Amino acid sequence: MLAEIITIGDEILIGQIVDTNSAWMAKELNLIGIKVKQITSVSDDAEHITEALALAEKRAKVILITGGLGPTKDDITKITLAKYFNMGFRRDEATLAHITEIFRRHNRPMIESNNMQADVPDGCTVIKNENGTAPCMWFEHNGNIIVSMPGVPFEMMYLMQEQILPRLKESFKLPFIVHKTILTANIGESFLAVEIEQIENSLPEHIKLAYLPKLGQVRLRLSSTGPEETVLKEEVEYYAQQIIAKVKKYVVVEEDIALEKAILNIMNERKLTLSTAESCTGGYIAQLITQHPGCSSVYIGGAVVYSNKLKESVLGVNPETLNNHGAVSEQTVKEMALGALTHFRTDYAVAVTGVAGPDGGTPGKPVGTVWIAVASSSRVIARLFNFGNKRAQNIERSAIAALTMILNELNQYGD
Amino acid sequence: MLAEIITIGDEILIGQIVDTNSAWMAKELNLIGIKVKQITSVSDDAEHITEALALAEKRAKVILITGGLGPTKDDITKITLAKYFNMGFRRDEATLAHITEIFRRHNRPMIESNNMQADVPDGCTVIKNENGTAPCMWFEHNGNIIVSMPGVPFEMMYLMQEQILPRLKESFKLPFIVHKTILTANIGESFLAVEIEQIENSLPEHIKLAYLPKLGQVRLRLSSTGPEETVLKEEVEYYAQQIIAKVKKYVVVEEDIALEKAILNIMNERKLTLSTAESCTGGYIAQLITQHPGCSSVYIGGAVVYSNKLKESVLGVNPETLNNHGAVSEQTVKEMALGALTHFRTDYAVAVTGVAGPDGGTPGKPVGTVWIAVASSSRVIARLFNFGNKRAQNIERSAIAALTMILNELNQYGD
Repeated sequence: MLAEIITIGDEILIGQIVDTNSAWMAKELNLIGIKVKQITSVSDDAEHITEALALAEKRAKVILITGGLGPTKDDITKITLAKYFNMGFRRDEATLAHITEIFRRHNRPMIESNNMQADVPDGCTVIKNENGTAPCMWFEHNGNIIVSMPGVPFEMMYLMQEQILPRLKESFKLPFIVHKTILTANIGESFLAVEIEQIENSLPEHIKLAYLPKLGQVRLRLSSTGPEETVLKEEVEYYAQQIIAKVKKYVVVEEDIALEKAILNIMNERKLTLSTAESCTGGYIAQLITQHPGCSSVYIGGAVVYSNKLKESVLGVNPETLNNHGAVSEQTVKEMALGALTHFRTDYAVAVTGVAGPDGGTPGKPVGTVWIAVASSSRVIARLFNFGNKRAQNIERSAIAALTMILNELNQYGD
Repeated sequence: MLAEIITIGDEILIGQIVDTNSAWMAKELNLIGIKVKQITSVSDDAEHITEALALAEKRAKVILITGGLGPTKDDITKITLAKYFNMGFRRDEATLAHITEIFRRHNRPMIESNNMQADVPDGCTVIKNENGTAPCMWFEHNGNIIVSMPGVPFEMMYLMQEQILPRLKESFKLPFIVHKTILTANIGESFLAVEIEQIENSLPEHIKLAYLPKLGQVRLRLSSTGPEETVLKEEVEYYAQQIIAKVKKYVVVEEDIALEKAILNIMNERKLTLSTAESCTGGYIAQLITQHPGCSSVYIGGAVVYSNKLKESVLGVNPETLNNHGAVSEQTVKEMALGALTHFRTDYAVAVTGVAGPDGGTPGKPVGTVWIAVASSSRVIARLFNFGNKRAQNIERSAIAALTMILNELNQYGD
C-alpha cells in the first residue's frame, strides 16, 4: 500500500518553516504498513496543486494533503479540490457551530471569512478538527483516498492519530503489523550487521529488519505483517530476544522511545532523582529532559556553568583542579558531577565539559574533545570522547553520549 | 527565475529524518532572487528519480538534488543521472586524491566502494566537496542547470555557500537583490499591516515587502531588485527607516538574525554579561544562547530550577515567597532573576517560571501561565503571559518572550 504527502503553502518554499509534518506523518503511516512513495511541497497555486494531485493519484492509493486551509485569500486549496473532484460547495453546519464556539470561547468577533471556513466541497466527508477552525476533508476518488488537513502541526497530529490512521486501516483492511524497536549505542551500523547476520538471515519472509542509524545510535526495528496479531507479537518478540542476547552490551532500550524518556521511565519507577551540570552542552541536556511531561518527578534541575567561576560557585569545583587540569579534564568533570549530586541532592548527576568549537581548541584538546561524568552514591565514572568538529554536532553527540552513559549506569546497577 | 529541490533517500520517506536541508536551500535561493517552485522527496529508485527530474526540468531552470551519494549499494543517484543525461563514467583523479587523503587522515583502509565515489558522469563539472568524500556534480542540460550534492547538511551548506550560489548568480547573470529585515514583536501580522499600509502602498514596483510571522514575532523583509547595487541599498534603507519610525515600539532588531544573537551582539559590544534562571523553559533559553559560537564572552551560565528546593538553594528565593505566592508568581520570578543576578554576578539576568503543561494547571493558573522577569542593576521588571496549551509551544513562546524582554531592556537603557 503506497501513500503520498502533499504540503501546500509558500512558507515551506521560501524556507520560512521546516516541514516537520511530513516526517511525522511518514513515520506514522509506516507503522501501520503504508509506505510513502513521494513527498511534494507545492505553492498556493491552483494549477500547481492540481498537477501534483493528479500525478500523486497515479502513483499511490492514499494522498494526504496538509496546509492551505486558513481563512485568508491565499489559501485556495479548498476551491481547487472542489474543482478537481468536480464538486459544488455546501456549508457544513456542524463545522460552523464548532467555529462559532471557538470564537465565542476566545471572545473574538467572527467575520465572513471565518464563516466561510465551514464551506466544504459537497461530496467530501467532513472530519471534525477538535483543535482548530479549518475542517478536515476526506475524499474518495477512483478507488483512492485523498485527505486534506490543516498544516498546523498539533491539529494535523491529533487528526491523524484519532481519525485518519484508524480510518485508513479500516478502509483498506490493512493486515496487522507489529513492530519492536531495539535502541543500540556505541556500535556502528555495519559492525552491528555483522554481529546479527545469522539472526537476520534466519528471519521468515514476513518479518523485516530495518537499521535506523542516527548520531552514534542505531535503532533496530523488526516489523512483522500478517493476519494474526498475537502470533505476530510472539514471533517478533522471539527474534528480538535473540538479537538482544547477541548484542546485549550495546542495547540501551528495548522500546521506541527517546533516550531521555527511557531514563525518566526507569528512574521514575525506581523513585530516583537526576540533576545536570552542563558546560559545553549549554542546557541542551536539560532541555531534552524537560520536553517530556511529568519529568519533574525525576528531574530536579541543574546548572549551565559556562564560566569557570560558576563551576566553582555553583558546583563547588576546586579552583586548583581547574588551574591544574583545565576545565576540560577528567578531574573537573568528576568534580562537576559530584558537585551537582551533593549541591542539588539527587541520586544521579551527569556532567559535561568540552570544546564545542569552532574556537577554543588547542593541540592537546582539539575542538570536539568532551569529558562526560555520571555520579551516583555508588560511584563516579568519567569518559573522554572525541567528536567531529562542528559546534552543533558536538553538542548533540555529547548529549546523546551523556544520556547513554546514564542509561548504562542504570542498567548496570539497576535490577 | 525558478528552481526546484529534489531530495533522494528513504530516510526522509520513512520519517527517520526531518528534511531541514530544503528549507535552508530555499531561503538561500530566495535571497539571491531565485524562487523555489516545488520540493520533491523521492526514494532511492532509478525510475522514480528520473520521473521527478524530468518533471522538474519542465517547471524550473535550476534543479538542486541532495542525497543518494553514499558509498553503499542503495545510492543509485549517480548511475541514474548518467543514464538520464546520456553520459558515460570517468574516474575523477582530483576527487580520488581528495578521498584518499581523507582516509589517510583518519587512518582508515580504503575499499573499492570508496574508490568508486570518485567515478562521475563524464559530462559533468565536478565541484570539490571540502567536507566529505561524495563529489558535487554540476550538469548543464537544455539550458537548465542541475546540481547533485551530498545530503549531509554541513557538506551541502558549505557547497551551496562557497560554490553553487555564486555560480548560479554568475550563470544566469542575476540582477542584484538587496534585502533588509526588521524583526518586530508584540504585534500581530494584520495589525502591523494596518500600521504601515501607507508606506507599503508607496513602495516602487521593484521593492517588495514580505511579512514572515513566527510565534509572536513578525519579520518584515524588504527586497529590492535592479541593476545598481548601491542604489538598491539606499532605496531599501530609505523605506526601512520609514517603517522603523512608524512602528518603533515593536521593532526589536534591524537585522535578519535570531533574537538571542542580537542580544549577544549588543551585550558583547557593551561588555555586559548575562545569566539565566529557568523553570518551565527547562534550559531551552540557555541552549538557544549557547548555540552561538563566542557566546561565552557574554553568557556566564545559569540554573535550571525545576524543583522549589533548587529555586531556594541555587537562586536564594525565599521559601516564604514560594509558600505565599507559589512558584508561578510575580514575586517568585523577580526573586529568581535577582538571585541569578547576584549569585552568578552578571549585569543582566532573565528568569522564567510557568505552567508548561499538560499537567500542573489550576483554575487560577491554567496551563500556559508564565511569568518572566529581567533584572539589571537599574531595575527588575516582570510580565505575565498566557500562552496556548501545548507544552512545546508554551516553552518556545516563553523563550521568545524572555529574549524579547531582554532586548527591550537593552534597547531602552542602552545608548
